[in-house]
Amino acid sequence: MRPRDSRRPPAAACYAAIMPNSQPRLLRACRRQTVDRTPVWFMRQAGRYMPSYRARRAQHDLLTLCRRPELAAEITIEAAETLGVDGAIIFSDLLLPAEPLGFRLSYSSGEGPAIEPVLRDRAAIAALPENRGGDLGYIAAAVAKVHAHFGPRLPVIGFAGAPFTLASYLIEGGPSRNFLATKRLLYSDFGAWALLMQKLCPLLVEMLSQQVAAGAAVIQLFDSWVGTLSENDYRHFVLPYNRLVIEAVQALGVPVIYFSTGTGGYLETLNEAGAAVLGLDWRVELDTAWRRLGYSCGLQGNLDPARMLAPAEDLRRAVKRLLDQTREHPGYIFNLGHGILPETDLEQARRVVEWVHEDNG
Amino acid sequence: MRPRDSRRPPAAACYAAIMPNSQPRLLRACRRQTVDRTPVWFMRQAGRYMPSYRARRAQHDLLTLCRRPELAAEITIEAAETLGVDGAIIFSDLLLPAEPLGFRLSYSSGEGPAIEPVLRDRAAIAALPENRGGDLGYIAAAVAKVHAHFGPRLPVIGFAGAPFTLASYLIEGGPSRNFLATKRLLYSDFGAWALLMQKLCPLLVEMLSQQVAAGAAVIQLFDSWVGTLSENDYRHFVLPYNRLVIEAVQALGVPVIYFSTGTGGYLETLNEAGAAVLGLDWRVELDTAWRRLGYSCGLQGNLDPARMLAPAEDLRRAVKRLLDQTREHPGYIFNLGHGILPETDLEQARRVVEWVHEDNG
Repeated sequence: MRPRDSRRPPAAACYAAIMPNSQPRLLRACRRQTVDRTPVWFMRQAGRYMPSYRARRAQHDLLTLCRRPELAAEITIEAAETLGVDGAIIFSDLLLPAEPLGFRLSYSSGEGPAIEPVLRDRAAIAALPENRGGDLGYIAAAVAKVHAHFGPRLPVIGFAGAPFTLASYLIEGGPSRNFLATKRLLYSDFGAWALLMQKLCPLLVEMLSQQVAAGAAVIQLFDSWVGTLSENDYRHFVLPYNRLVIEAVQALGVPVIYFSTGTGGYLETLNEAGAAVLGLDWRVELDTAWRRLGYSCGLQGNLDPARMLAPAEDLRRAVKRLLDQTREHPGYIFNLGHGILPETDLEQARRVVEWVHEDNG
Repeated sequence: MRPRDSRRPPAAACYAAIMPNSQPRLLRACRRQTVDRTPVWFMRQAGRYMPSYRARRAQHDLLTLCRRPELAAEITIEAAETLGVDGAIIFSDLLLPAEPLGFRLSYSSGEGPAIEPVLRDRAAIAALPENRGGDLGYIAAAVAKVHAHFGPRLPVIGFAGAPFTLASYLIEGGPSRNFLATKRLLYSDFGAWALLMQKLCPLLVEMLSQQVAAGAAVIQLFDSWVGTLSENDYRHFVLPYNRLVIEAVQALGVPVIYFSTGTGGYLETLNEAGAAVLGLDWRVELDTAWRRLGYSCGLQGNLDPARMLAPAEDLRRAVKRLLDQTREHPGYIFNLGHGILPETDLEQARRVVEWVHEDNG
């Protein structure tokens, strides 16, 4: 892992300086430059749908795989090479920053993660340690290993949970249907929420800066649960903190992909946070979305992950349809609208990558 | 219960003929006519948040309450009178049409309903009986009792699940996270899906016609799960059947409120089914939504149900904000963006109704 204050500029800046005309297509698309082929990767591309990953999980639990850089790097590399995708998202988990804040994480199969103790009041928030992410160096160490493996040929995608999604996990203690505890806090004690954001945002920025210093050329922020909020609540309780994190990361010279779900009613507001690319779920048409956004950002997505289970003919038509919707403007990255499902057939996923790469309009 | 072929015109038409200037404000809003006060009701307004309802549930299971018209009518009336709302939605359950089709229903607390056997292939769909809803007369019988109680003073709101939502329950066997079985059917065997729609749509139309004949002055179609689909899938697999049901009901002279969630990215497409009113969840701003729709329909919604748990001051501001967004055009009905939550305080719900009625801009 490279320390934050290394004099080495971020990897993305290196690419740009050394090979101005041969940047990987994922990075070119993030900057809305023309590409030879549409870049493609999958959220959760290293996961249970992959036999080799299941074999590793039979030997180690999820936290061990995340915490041991050599294992996390191997999983990351294996998935990217098996699929032939245009980016290697680091194998990790968005809840890891909870540990240096004093929470215990556990993962039971089927029920999603559990975080203890739950965080419910201002006193508990005030008592959270100020942590600058030093304990999370193992993530950046894994990034460095993947970057050393691929060099400039394949960008490493670093990531973190966005502030709202991470906070809601801490407050709810796990996945939630209605996010009542989170909303109670938002609506009854904005000061406590702001205090929580003051604890989480610097930690996220530090953790992402470490990943960039270690070689991550793109950062994706996962705001998987933010779609539980109305646009007005998003604007008040979420947007300022997203903007802060996104600006801090992009100031390092790497583009941010901001991914959320259930937010098709207020894409314009998401875009105000300034991420280079918006990652969309499948509940909005890409061409409509891009028009609404005035083509002012890149777009990533947005095939329904369930479509990966469709017959190959049907799936191929759906892939073609997305590509057809995005030919007019540079800045499109093919992906699913959420993480790849465990039920997905690996061969089908590989075929999708081939179809995207073979496509030429 | 009045039979379908009764010569008596539907209740709504009676009101219009007898009292052209004194129609209830809910009906006026459905037709985008001016109102003295904004009409208000709550989805699931008779439910577990209400102590009197919990007392009844301690005596009878849900299906018994639905199947016995005197009980369903009492619950409906009690909720409407306790709250002082502008409509009495009939106490019922959207899964009831599954029974005459040969499915068994069971409701366990906390886990949601279970429907057996699951419906997974074309042969099983083809084997479903052609049922015209005669076995569901107990719903219309309850409507008739509520209508007899309130007369023209308070409209009875009839309802059914929309075709997609009902079908997905039958296919999944209960609530679902990813709707994989439903989507497998859609993507692999459109013919089987169309056949299923041919079985469900006439049953829904018949059941709703019975409710209208019994006195329902408004019908709400609940498409609670349709937000799992992309816009393009919605257009192909859902829109034609929604249009069919909505047109058939509105031809009887009663307006339809079409409610869905997670569809903020494609409101314009929902609107193509022609419902008098769109019911929105809270993930879209009402003023933005209405502008997008060109003010071509009424709107219902869309307070986040979780907001009902906020401190009174905060809640009151949120109510005011919705009303302020909808003053410019007639056709707005105050409601939540989904069913009222069991955690809601009844007094708080009553206060919201008062605030909406006291409001005068």
